Amino acid sequence: MSHPHALPTVADIRNAAARIAPHAVVTPVLRSEALDALAGAQLHFKCENFQRGGAFKFRGACNAVWSLDDADARRGVVTHSSGNHGSALALAAATRGIAAHVVVPDGAVQAKLELIARAGAVLHRCAPTQAAREATAAQVQRDTGAVLVHPYTDARVMAGQGTIALELLAQVPALDALITPVGGGGLASGVAIAAHALRPGLPLFAAEPAGADDAARSLAAGRRVEAMQPDTVCDGLRALVGEPNLQALREHAVTVITVTDAQTIAAMRLIWRELRIIVEVSCATVLAAVLQQRERFAGRRIGLVITGGNVDLDALPWVVSPR
Amino acid sequence: MSHPHALPTVADIRNAAARIAPHAVVTPVLRSEALDALAGAQLHFKCENFQRGGAFKFRGACNAVWSLDDADARRGVVTHSSGNHGSALALAAATRGIAAHVVVPDGAVQAKLELIARAGAVLHRCAPTQAAREATAAQVQRDTGAVLVHPYTDARVMAGQGTIALELLAQVPALDALITPVGGGGLASGVAIAAHALRPGLPLFAAEPAGADDAARSLAAGRRVEAMQPDTVCDGLRALVGEPNLQALREHAVTVITVTDAQTIAAMRLIWRELRIIVEVSCATVLAAVLQQRERFAGRRIGLVITGGNVDLDALPWVVSPR
Repeated sequence: MSHPHALPTVADIRNAAARIAPHAVVTPVLRSEALDALAGAQLHFKCENFQRGGAFKFRGACNAVWSLDDADARRGVVTHSSGNHGSALALAAATRGIAAHVVVPDGAVQAKLELIARAGAVLHRCAPTQAAREATAAQVQRDTGAVLVHPYTDARVMAGQGTIALELLAQVPALDALITPVGGGGLASGVAIAAHALRPGLPLFAAEPAGADDAARSLAAGRRVEAMQPDTVCDGLRALVGEPNLQALREHAVTVITVTDAQTIAAMRLIWRELRIIVEVSCATVLAAVLQQRERFAGRRIGLVITGGNVDLDALPWVVSPR
Repeated sequence: MSHPHALPTVADIRNAAARIAPHAVVTPVLRSEALDALAGAQLHFKCENFQRGGAFKFRGACNAVWSLDDADARRGVVTHSSGNHGSALALAAATRGIAAHVVVPDGAVQAKLELIARAGAVLHRCAPTQAAREATAAQVQRDTGAVLVHPYTDARVMAGQGTIALELLAQVPALDALITPVGGGGLASGVAIAAHALRPGLPLFAAEPAGADDAARSLAAGRRVEAMQPDTVCDGLRALVGEPNLQALREHAVTVITVTDAQTIAAMRLIWRELRIIVEVSCATVLAAVLQQRERFAGRRIGLVITGGNVDLDALPWVVSPR
C-alpha cells in the first residue's frame, strides 16, 4: 500500500494474517445457550479478550511493527492511545526488539496503563483531548524519529484488525451477520473489507455508544462530524471515527446501531455471567445492540466481536456507578 | 460397573466420554504469558468454567443420567448439592427429559441457586449439615422413587469427571504434572484414574483449602478424617472427601497441597486479570498451590483444571470480604 492512510485491500489483510501468525493468538469462539435464548438468535462470540495484551489491538499493532523496514524499525514506534492500542504497540514492538513510545491521555483506565508499562513502553502523559494527543505524539516523533502508528487511520492497523474477520469466517463459515463496536473505526473498517471480500453482501453492523455516536451521525450527514464531546462509560469507544474508516463504513454499507450506556452495562453483566469471561464495557455494545433490535436479528447466526478484557476489577460499572 | 460406590475403570471413563459427547462442551485450554512468568512454569488451564452450566460437574451428572435404564430414568434423579452439581444434574436431566430434585443447604451461593432453578429442577431446602442433606435426599427418594446421584462418591459421576483428563491429555499431550482442586474428591479421583491409565507415573496433585483440609489429613492418618468443620471461602470445596475418592487418591499417590484462603483469593484475582475469565474462588486453589510451591513446579508443563465460573458478581471476595 502506498500511503498509510489509504484503505487496505483484502490482499493486505491476508498478508497481515501471515505476518502476525507467529505472534498472535487464534482466539476461540464461545457460545451461550442462555444468551441465544435471550436474543432469539445464534450468537457466536469471537473472543479477542484472549488476544495477546487482552485486546484485538495487538493484531493491528503487530502488523504495523512487522511491516516496517529495518531502518524505520530501528527508530522505534510511537502512538497515542487511551489504553489497548498503546499496550498492543508496546507488546508488538517487544516482539521485534524495538522501542515503543505511548502518549496516554489523563484519565485512562488504570489496568490499561499498567499493561502499557509492563510491556516496556515509554509513557508520555498528556491532557485528554485529541489535540493534546496529536501534539505530544508529534513532539515524540521529532525527538526520537519514531514512526507514528495511528490507532485506527493507519492502513497497516486496519489490515491487522481485519484478520479477525478472516479467522472468524473460517471458524464459523455460515454467519448471517457480523457486528463489531465502532470507536475510531479501525476494527469496523478492517473487518468490513475482509468480510465482504469473503462474503459479498454479508450484512455488517457496528455498535456505537449513544454518547459518542459520531459514526452514526457522520454516515447520516454524508461527512465526518467532528463537533462532538464524547460522553460514555465506554472508554475504548470515545475516539471520533477516522476519515478512511468512515469511508470504509460507507462503502461497505455498515449499519450503525447506537446503544445507551445502561444497555451496554446490562449487556456487559450478561456476558460476564453467561459466558464467564471478563470483557470491558466497550465490548458489550455489540450484545446490547443485538438485544435492542431482537426482531432484526431473530433466528440469525451472528458473529459478535468481543474486543477486549482489560478492566479495573475494583471499579466495575455495576458496583461503583461511573456517572 | 456393579456398585455405584466402586471406583470406575478407565473403560468406564472412556464410555462416559462417548456418552456425554453429544451434550458436553469440549472446553478450551488457555494460557497466559504473565502467569507463566509468575510461576516460572508452563501453565495450561483446562477451562471447565466454559462447560455447560458453567462447571465440570455437568460431565459426571450427564454420565449418570445417561447411564440409567429407561425404567429408572422415568422416576427422575435426586441429589444434594451446594450448587454446581445440583444445576449440572438438572441440566443433564433436561437433556433426557426427566425430573431432577435438588436438595440445597441454606447459605449456598445465590448464582448457583438461580442456575439450578433455571435448569428446571425441583428445589428442596435443608439445614447446611451433611446429615440434613442426606436425610432430605433420602426423603425425596422415598417420596418420588428418584435415583440418587451422589455428587462425588457415585462411580458414574467420578467416571464423568475423569473425562476431563482424557480430553486435556489429548489437547496437551506433553504435561509433566496435573492438578485439580479437591473437595469431595469426585474430580480428583476420576482425573487420577484416567490420567494414570494414559500416563502411568504422571505426578498428580490436588489443591485443598487449609480450612477444609480433610483430604490431606485423611491421607496422612491413613483413614478418613470426619471430625472437621469446614471453614473456607471456597464454597465448592467444603464437602468432606468421600471414602472411594480417598481410596483413589491413595492408590494414585495424589499429593495434596493445602492453601490459605488469602492465597486462593489472590490467585483468583490473578486468573481474572491475566486470563480474563470468570472463575469461582474454589478453582483458584490450583494456581495458589502452584505459586506456593514454585520450586516444586519450576520449569514444568502443568495442567490446571479450572472447575467452574458461577460467581455472585455482586459479592466478589476482594470487594466484600466474606469473613
